[in-house]
Amino acid sequence: MSEPTVTENSPGVTDVPGFSAAAAACGIRATGDRDRLDLALIYSKDPCSAAGVFTQNAVKAPPVRLCADLLAAGQPFHGIVANSGNANACTGEEGMADAREMGALTGNALGVPPNSFLVCSTGRIGDRLPMEKLRNGISVATTNLSSDQDRGLAAAQAILTSDTRPKTVTVRFEWEGQTVTEAGLAKGAGMIQPNMATMLAFLATDAAVEREVLQKILGRAVDYTFNRITVDGDMSTNDTVLLLANGRSGVRVADESGGLAERFAVAVRRACGYLAEKIVSDGEKITKVVEVIVAGAESEADAEKVARAIGNSLLVKSSWYGEDPNWGRLADAAGYAGARLVEEKLDIFYEDVPAVAKGRPLPENKPKWKEVVKAPRFRITLNLNLGRDEFRLLATDLTEAYVRFNKSE
Amino acid sequence: MSEPTVTENSPGVTDVPGFSAAAAACGIRATGDRDRLDLALIYSKDPCSAAGVFTQNAVKAPPVRLCADLLAAGQPFHGIVANSGNANACTGEEGMADAREMGALTGNALGVPPNSFLVCSTGRIGDRLPMEKLRNGISVATTNLSSDQDRGLAAAQAILTSDTRPKTVTVRFEWEGQTVTEAGLAKGAGMIQPNMATMLAFLATDAAVEREVLQKILGRAVDYTFNRITVDGDMSTNDTVLLLANGRSGVRVADESGGLAERFAVAVRRACGYLAEKIVSDGEKITKVVEVIVAGAESEADAEKVARAIGNSLLVKSSWYGEDPNWGRLADAAGYAGARLVEEKLDIFYEDVPAVAKGRPLPENKPKWKEVVKAPRFRITLNLNLGRDEFRLLATDLTEAYVRFNKSE
Repeated sequence: MSEPTVTENSPGVTDVPGFSAAAAACGIRATGDRDRLDLALIYSKDPCSAAGVFTQNAVKAPPVRLCADLLAAGQPFHGIVANSGNANACTGEEGMADAREMGALTGNALGVPPNSFLVCSTGRIGDRLPMEKLRNGISVATTNLSSDQDRGLAAAQAILTSDTRPKTVTVRFEWEGQTVTEAGLAKGAGMIQPNMATMLAFLATDAAVEREVLQKILGRAVDYTFNRITVDGDMSTNDTVLLLANGRSGVRVADESGGLAERFAVAVRRACGYLAEKIVSDGEKITKVVEVIVAGAESEADAEKVARAIGNSLLVKSSWYGEDPNWGRLADAAGYAGARLVEEKLDIFYEDVPAVAKGRPLPENKPKWKEVVKAPRFRITLNLNLGRDEFRLLATDLTEAYVRFNKSE
Repeated sequence: MSEPTVTENSPGVTDVPGFSAAAAACGIRATGDRDRLDLALIYSKDPCSAAGVFTQNAVKAPPVRLCADLLAAGQPFHGIVANSGNANACTGEEGMADAREMGALTGNALGVPPNSFLVCSTGRIGDRLPMEKLRNGISVATTNLSSDQDRGLAAAQAILTSDTRPKTVTVRFEWEGQTVTEAGLAKGAGMIQPNMATMLAFLATDAAVEREVLQKILGRAVDYTFNRITVDGDMSTNDTVLLLANGRSGVRVADESGGLAERFAVAVRRACGYLAEKIVSDGEKITKVVEVIVAGAESEADAEKVARAIGNSLLVKSSWYGEDPNWGRLADAAGYAGARLVEEKLDIFYEDVPAVAKGRPLPENKPKWKEVVKAPRFRITLNLNLGRDEFRLLATDLTEAYVRFNKSE
């Protein structure tokens, strides 16, 4: 099976035939920059099947609950409308009415059936949306739709919060002489960890995929990508990944098995994986991305516990920031993860340099691993030597700038 | 039942009849300050029963394993020898031999039977103890024992790592005309959280208590005190709480029930509670202590999950540091804690000021709760309104200085 082609920093969704996009500056943020784009619109004239994966937080923002309800109802969709600057979270029934109104206004302006638009919000928790501003923004955006590549990028820009750059990707593969395109955009930055982040990711494809199949393929892709990154261990109220399929290519993914389904699933996973990487490497005020691999665990759950304990330890993250090769803190975090671990069997590597072998420190290698931690990205491997399961987590350091940045909203 | 008398910042263990103490400066730390006290000795000529509670980290330092073995064997004890500057953790069989030698040297110098001394270490992980320096220190300390109050304080000083001040307490109560004394010292600072901290606490009493009873009383006290504090969510390889009882008062706590046992247990819990408070308020580079109370949970385990998610959230801790009254981050952390929570039932209070009532924000109260978070210590209460169980956690903020301090070892 040939690998799909991945184009990084692409125009995103407007690369997919049949999809257009727009953005507007509504002035949602209470302070500052009124010219900042804060409303994104993604549209397909052709009706789409859709799939979604949402935050597992017990406190779910109204737009998250609305999207889940709409997807469960299963009608065809025509797009996504999303704002940044206000999460519309902890806003009760009024917040749900506001989310519904966002979708209804967009759908009405574009002359599509009710409930054709999925709705997302990201930003500050606990304030009502400034609906007057949103109404203006939606009327601007719906009259500016285009498949130009700058529109795809504008939509990617409009959903950012504390991100420093837009995140887009396009993945293509050939099937029986036909090109299938899969493209997406994402935002991340803070509240990034288990089971998604304060993150939004919107993906579009011109494959034709029935919704149950689409949901399974997306769910699996998210599990292996967005769910294996951590910046600060916080999971947000608004995390959402959506995938729309308009069928424009004529290539039909009829079920979950077989060569085409596999090709399609790989393309979805590539797109999600690339966007997840971009989210980690643009984490709030980070200076390091660390790939934590825990191998030789008795179960994947054990490997995951150890990887997350390490990736979320303040002491470990602070030492990464300081380029301090403190393997003792790795062993300590591994030890309290709640997984089975035998100190006398533990190996620790910085890239390929062993720091601990069967529980015994190898201080003679310290000059080598001190070099490893100077890189902006490096790999740490713990082999528990107890079994065959493993888990890979992308984590970041913790910086003074993160704390300063998050001192206030 | 009258409350016991609590004396804060007391001389500590030398307040207990029959106990003496000493400290020495061995120069254990590789760099800096050769005059810094780094060896503590606590001694009772009378044989003591003893109890201990240890880290639940799967990676246990050799002195922790040694103490657990000695306590399980159950022989009478004559004291504790402890060093700071080196944790003797991840040091394998040699580390265990070093820990044994520390105890044996101390016991031999004082002419008590083998295995009469409990041994503790705290500090850097992964390096062998500098035994030549420790041998000198032990010979100095064992010839300088005294029950003078400055010796109790010197011992409390000698076990500190990144703490800024010694932590001591003395608790006394009367029983049938007899005074029973309970005193202790502790160190904390970083790696402070679930199920103890990088913390050591040594307690002594002149009650006579059989070891099984002593163990139960200490275990319960630790569960309600040291196990309900968090600075950074990290649990160390060396956490240890020890309690020695020499019986000198003649008051005998024969079993776990009855008035005397209850008085004694309250005194132990008071001593542990006071030392736990001191550990939190001297957490590494903190500026705020926040009492997190989660009430109305369906189970105590649920209440605990929510309290710990809040107390360990980087975003919540950063906002406390910034005196930013960001209840949205509290709701978010509560939501991902893994406990049952219904957004529409959630109440949030800053001290007695409601910020959220049945899931609805009360922005009109914001000026009041903005005042609350300016205090160096304040209380946050979440009522889940789902049941009757609750949990109280003492937590701290996260500061830029913490990250700077922990950039390197």
